[in-house]
Amino acid sequence: MFAARYTGNGALEVVELPVPAPAPGQVQLEVAYTGICGTDLHILHGAMDARVTLPAVLGHEMAGRVASVGDGVDDWTVGDAATVMPLVSCGTCPACTSGAEHICYRLIFLGIDAPGSMQSRWNVPADVLVRLPDGLSLQTAALAEPTAVAVHDVRRSGLAPGERAVVVGAGPIGLLIATVARSSGGEVAVFEPNARRRAVIAGLGYEAVDPVSNDAEAWVENWTDGAGAAVAFEVSGTEAGMSTAIRCLGARGRAVVVGIHPSPPPVDLFRVFWRELSLIGARVYERADFEEAARLLAADAIPSSTLITDVVPLAEVTEAFDAMDAGTSMKILLDCATAAH
Amino acid sequence: MFAARYTGNGALEVVELPVPAPAPGQVQLEVAYTGICGTDLHILHGAMDARVTLPAVLGHEMAGRVASVGDGVDDWTVGDAATVMPLVSCGTCPACTSGAEHICYRLIFLGIDAPGSMQSRWNVPADVLVRLPDGLSLQTAALAEPTAVAVHDVRRSGLAPGERAVVVGAGPIGLLIATVARSSGGEVAVFEPNARRRAVIAGLGYEAVDPVSNDAEAWVENWTDGAGAAVAFEVSGTEAGMSTAIRCLGARGRAVVVGIHPSPPPVDLFRVFWRELSLIGARVYERADFEEAARLLAADAIPSSTLITDVVPLAEVTEAFDAMDAGTSMKILLDCATAAH
Repeated sequence: MFAARYTGNGALEVVELPVPAPAPGQVQLEVAYTGICGTDLHILHGAMDARVTLPAVLGHEMAGRVASVGDGVDDWTVGDAATVMPLVSCGTCPACTSGAEHICYRLIFLGIDAPGSMQSRWNVPADVLVRLPDGLSLQTAALAEPTAVAVHDVRRSGLAPGERAVVVGAGPIGLLIATVARSSGGEVAVFEPNARRRAVIAGLGYEAVDPVSNDAEAWVENWTDGAGAAVAFEVSGTEAGMSTAIRCLGARGRAVVVGIHPSPPPVDLFRVFWRELSLIGARVYERADFEEAARLLAADAIPSSTLITDVVPLAEVTEAFDAMDAGTSMKILLDCATAAH
Repeated sequence: MFAARYTGNGALEVVELPVPAPAPGQVQLEVAYTGICGTDLHILHGAMDARVTLPAVLGHEMAGRVASVGDGVDDWTVGDAATVMPLVSCGTCPACTSGAEHICYRLIFLGIDAPGSMQSRWNVPADVLVRLPDGLSLQTAALAEPTAVAVHDVRRSGLAPGERAVVVGAGPIGLLIATVARSSGGEVAVFEPNARRRAVIAGLGYEAVDPVSNDAEAWVENWTDGAGAAVAFEVSGTEAGMSTAIRCLGARGRAVVVGIHPSPPPVDLFRVFWRELSLIGARVYERADFEEAARLLAADAIPSSTLITDVVPLAEVTEAFDAMDAGTSMKILLDCATAAH
């Protein structure tokens, strides 16, 4: 089998390794495709060196088939199509015992805290597998994880049909949030300074607004006949993005904090008070979100061909990360099966 | 009749005026008591000169009796005991038409945007009156407005019986929030740097913690066996207070933003994301909150004798504001009936 590993100092290597048998309770997956996520780029840039163990097999957006099963695994059969919800929770901490296992205080995230799916075979605990609907291609299914993020974000927002929602930032997650919000009955506008990304958004039929040349608050006020938006998704991870999200909201609007803000930005708490806004943190997903993501992908409700801009062999992982860094691609999938040949 | 008026430049005057008859739809109240609020101090200090019209009769925390009624008012009789929910909404803006009249986009707040209750007679629209339960003293009833703030804040938090709540700041509103939260079944700890206020809190049986000499996050972690608090009320209006509120919360904890933050403080949005926290703005109250406040006061559930540290004649309004500024009093009531004699 082959594996792509981060070895520190901005470097990736592809190595051939023996195939380890799945342990009891594990399933061995033949990985078909693994998507490259912004988090993988952060890791490559050294931003998470304190968290990863080198050499680190990255990857947490994948689809594949069951290659073999360990002892005690009864509900999976060789050849079953599956994706992975890459969270291993402790089951005993206050988050787990209050029904929020996905934000377990000792969460292990596969692909960051433990080996990920940028390899041709991947042994995982059976209970992280999510069954894929019949007829869903494995390329499209590799979008299940980021789609589950978007499903979770929209669910956390409480978006109701007919409500107006603003998405701040149109990378892959922003585009997926816009998609899920619209499929939930919301009317969606997207703020994005990058003209190419705005064109993609506009091509999918969304309002696509440049927050640099427009006054975002005035634009939304006009769009909503003075009411302000019901929901805003902050997906940019920037101070300006958070400010835009808050200023666009009407009375009792909800801003979902999706983007990563490494240092605390100034937040207009007077506006939060004045309009009785809610700022809602949303992290990863729960199983129901993953299952809904698989359903949406199978129903062709997600613009997968717009999102997946390239599919390259695992052997070209370094070039693929470079292309993602250059910002010319939305989502690149690594073909992990090809690498094994 | 007599009225206390803010005349600009930090000055108050008490003047004798003719009694104007109530207009159609209005009720004339004989004001018994008016409490001095932090907002009144802000106005006296000039912080709201752009909003008030001089000379401005301040006051929005009151109780009294109906003195006369204007044409078309059928449900109030001379002598009825009443307090006032001092909000006049437009009825047509997006907040009003979505059921959030209390945060009307064109809200008129009586005592700020229109004359208040620091006068012996006060004409108000009949629909702002709230009937007082039998047997409730008018001194105690003058706490209805700040108590309604606390009821609203606790309701916005979604506090459930048995949950642990932190109150950051132990002025009158903080003390009232602690009271309402405990009467709702919550277990309450209060963070307050002022030793005298901490002693008041401790005397009422709450955990009273000095956030300067204690690490608030570590204290709460210990208090909650590692879980973190379910709810935090930010009542200090300070950057440090907001930081404490966020750091004390466990998974999916809710921070209610009660305090006024004139400029946007840095907020740890990474923590909001990581623990899926909610930051919830809470402003004034709705009618149900006012009615619940009157019920709690009548049931002797509010420590009114601890809160009301002094009752002085309206003629001594300047001295009373000075005493509030000095920080030695919790709440001073102005006896507005005495002034009329």
